[in-house]
Amino acid sequence: MRRTKISIILKDGKVGEEYLVKGWVRTRRGSKNVNFIALNDGSTIHNLQIVADVEMFGDSLLRRVTTGAALAISGKLIASQGSGQAVELVADQIEVLGDCDADTFPLQPKKHSLEFLRENAHLRFRTNTFGAITRVRHAMIFAVHQFFTSKGFVNIHTPIITASDAEGAGEMFQVTTLDLDNIPRTEEGKIDFDQDFFGKATNLTVSGQLEGELAAMGMGEIYTFGPTFRAENSNTTRHLAEFWMIEPEMAFYDLNDNMDLAEEFLKYLINYALENCMDDLQFLSKRLQDEEKDKKADDRSMELIEKLRFVLANDFVRITYSEAIDILKESKPNKKGQFKYPVEGFGSDLQSEHERYLVEKHFKRPVILTDYPKEIKAFYMKLNADGRTVRAMDVLFPQIGEIIGGSQREEDYDKLVGRMNEMHIPVEEMWWYLDTRRFGSVPHSGFGLGFERLILFVTGMTNIRDVIPFPRTPRNAEF
Amino acid sequence: MRRTKISIILKDGKVGEEYLVKGWVRTRRGSKNVNFIALNDGSTIHNLQIVADVEMFGDSLLRRVTTGAALAISGKLIASQGSGQAVELVADQIEVLGDCDADTFPLQPKKHSLEFLRENAHLRFRTNTFGAITRVRHAMIFAVHQFFTSKGFVNIHTPIITASDAEGAGEMFQVTTLDLDNIPRTEEGKIDFDQDFFGKATNLTVSGQLEGELAAMGMGEIYTFGPTFRAENSNTTRHLAEFWMIEPEMAFYDLNDNMDLAEEFLKYLINYALENCMDDLQFLSKRLQDEEKDKKADDRSMELIEKLRFVLANDFVRITYSEAIDILKESKPNKKGQFKYPVEGFGSDLQSEHERYLVEKHFKRPVILTDYPKEIKAFYMKLNADGRTVRAMDVLFPQIGEIIGGSQREEDYDKLVGRMNEMHIPVEEMWWYLDTRRFGSVPHSGFGLGFERLILFVTGMTNIRDVIPFPRTPRNAEF
Repeated sequence: MRRTKISIILKDGKVGEEYLVKGWVRTRRGSKNVNFIALNDGSTIHNLQIVADVEMFGDSLLRRVTTGAALAISGKLIASQGSGQAVELVADQIEVLGDCDADTFPLQPKKHSLEFLRENAHLRFRTNTFGAITRVRHAMIFAVHQFFTSKGFVNIHTPIITASDAEGAGEMFQVTTLDLDNIPRTEEGKIDFDQDFFGKATNLTVSGQLEGELAAMGMGEIYTFGPTFRAENSNTTRHLAEFWMIEPEMAFYDLNDNMDLAEEFLKYLINYALENCMDDLQFLSKRLQDEEKDKKADDRSMELIEKLRFVLANDFVRITYSEAIDILKESKPNKKGQFKYPVEGFGSDLQSEHERYLVEKHFKRPVILTDYPKEIKAFYMKLNADGRTVRAMDVLFPQIGEIIGGSQREEDYDKLVGRMNEMHIPVEEMWWYLDTRRFGSVPHSGFGLGFERLILFVTGMTNIRDVIPFPRTPRNAEF
Repeated sequence: MRRTKISIILKDGKVGEEYLVKGWVRTRRGSKNVNFIALNDGSTIHNLQIVADVEMFGDSLLRRVTTGAALAISGKLIASQGSGQAVELVADQIEVLGDCDADTFPLQPKKHSLEFLRENAHLRFRTNTFGAITRVRHAMIFAVHQFFTSKGFVNIHTPIITASDAEGAGEMFQVTTLDLDNIPRTEEGKIDFDQDFFGKATNLTVSGQLEGELAAMGMGEIYTFGPTFRAENSNTTRHLAEFWMIEPEMAFYDLNDNMDLAEEFLKYLINYALENCMDDLQFLSKRLQDEEKDKKADDRSMELIEKLRFVLANDFVRITYSEAIDILKESKPNKKGQFKYPVEGFGSDLQSEHERYLVEKHFKRPVILTDYPKEIKAFYMKLNADGRTVRAMDVLFPQIGEIIGGSQREEDYDKLVGRMNEMHIPVEEMWWYLDTRRFGSVPHSGFGLGFERLILFVTGMTNIRDVIPFPRTPRNAEF
């Protein structure tokens, strides 16, 4: 008999038929005559209840059916007499594929802290919470590819190892094959990178955008989806040293086209989760409510599924940075000194508290801010006619703050070189990037979505280390 | 008017309607009265022919319509009077979005060598060949996700930065934030990795398999799809320092299940290309025939599309390594001394020439070899009852040789530790990997597909640097 996945049995299983299932024991409970085994195989948040006759299987076998043990079970599917499940499998045969010593197995049939599960990231796939997150994460990966593919975008694998720090996006990890114990030197005593693998100093990429622009200038519409890196010593619930980014880049798009795409994209992803992951979302919603049950009603999050539906139902507000500053300056928390960073006026960078005020208190829906002061944005953003703002856009979400950052790009060669000089970007090293403005330049735009930020939003989790399988953070590269 | 992509116009455009198109000029030719502009926007291998009245637009504008210039053109679609295209657009308006100086633009309207295009990888997206490859590459990316998603697999993002070299798969790139100019030392004079970002020495991953196994031991069926790295100083047409791998890993699969999946997967991908990329494949087929036109008939490749159909039409041969050795020992080239590496008998590693002989000459179809000697395979492969072979499988393809390598994994804790000790794998460091065999171990299998190898096969290209946007090879990390 071929194995059937539990997700299939729970959805399409026929009462009265024989099935073979394989999976890991979540719990076993029972009486003198009958045992109930909750079996999970990773295909769904729900367990299949196995009914095992104690006399038939005997004590010595059933004692091996402990939390974490792997079983193969064949039997007949029947309508369940108990509550909590529609069907259950009456075991004919039970084979223990792999024992699991109850005394040493780290995952006990009780609630573990998320911190404890992080330390056991190699085993947390076997928990309800991390199983649900992993399935939702997969659904979002697929939805990203499906969204862009349906629109004719092509996915570009931009390089991970690069020799440029053009974005100036932060501290970088060095990549080298030099013998660290005996760094070769030139005659002048400098590090002899000529002896390094690539013949020069290289780093891990902080963004695929610049290479993405190269591709868009031939393919039209492209997106990247790959790992990016920051060597920042930030030990927070929002930072990872290694995280995944999605960066679409589109020839012939202006800032409005860019905003339209970003809003459509986010709504597509959220709708996809609602349509394909409802079981897992319901579980995650309950988990969040549990976690917040001791909080005051005012401090609790919006119910997860309601929050996702709310984003779908509303147009995102679109205002300029300057308008946002005016709102924030006049806001109660600013006047009452409740912001950690008081809003002074044009020019100040917005903090997470300001972004969340706009979204959660003032507009009560997602907000897209545009036209930021050029000083606080990257060199490649298109300068507005006012000479002091750039055609940037940040999409702000409840709970998360900035979920997307993007812009129309400067397509004018002279203006771009001017901005690069102002911002001390090495113009010569960037000849290949400037070539796109030299030869058949076109208006174009793009944005970046931090994938883990999206998963935080969709799952309602609050620590970014809980939404990526093996988080990389300062002093932590386990597994 | 909204822009319409050229792919849409060529497929569904209505004669007599007005369209706005945007793209880059491939060529302009014409007479005193009328100019023909071939416009491409990356959405298809085909250009849209634009008909421009010379008197209407004037010389000063048309002189700016050079190869590489970016244009926005609106006009009426008509049935084409010339051959080579069904429709053409009669221009009402032409706007030059971006000029392109014909004297300095590297891409001229002539055939460039692939080597020259590699040096101009930032511009080669604008060529027919690289445009076609990029669209096929995207189609294959999407097909990978669609195949596994339809089967209920989840995509796992395994870590790029790791502290383990468990696979022993080759030389690795070091990742560090230490000041290379002033490496910190411990009191004993050793490199003080405690001061490094992760508090220990770290590298770029050579494979996501081991972490993939962790995930499969909870989620059931998973796959990875991410960049992997080798710091090997190999300057060949088959090696990259940075390349993309797909590694499915499945709980409850034995070696036969694994072979079934690998064969179904490869056929799915090839069929997807045939169903979705025929225009590009036809172009690539012609390109290959052109390239080989000076070769003797015997030395030419099978026609590209015929080759792809051939793989679909035939079951892969499945034989053991030992059977393959017997065939090779008795083969003509071996007896005549035509192999560079003569086949002696059981124990010798197979070279590309042997793999291709089996596939191209002996069986004339793809071959899966199983049960290799344990000495030439990795520690995690399941030992057969004979004690000298392991449940490995390599899928061999024409032109490529090994396209997939995989195995059933050793699920027995004691046997696995025994193999690790034999092969000097640090058992203590691998506690997390061994935990999967300690707690609820199950039979499981997996394999790895080098994505660029697949793209070589599907596109008929012969240099791996031509099937990834920005290749990383020794002394080359441009762009």
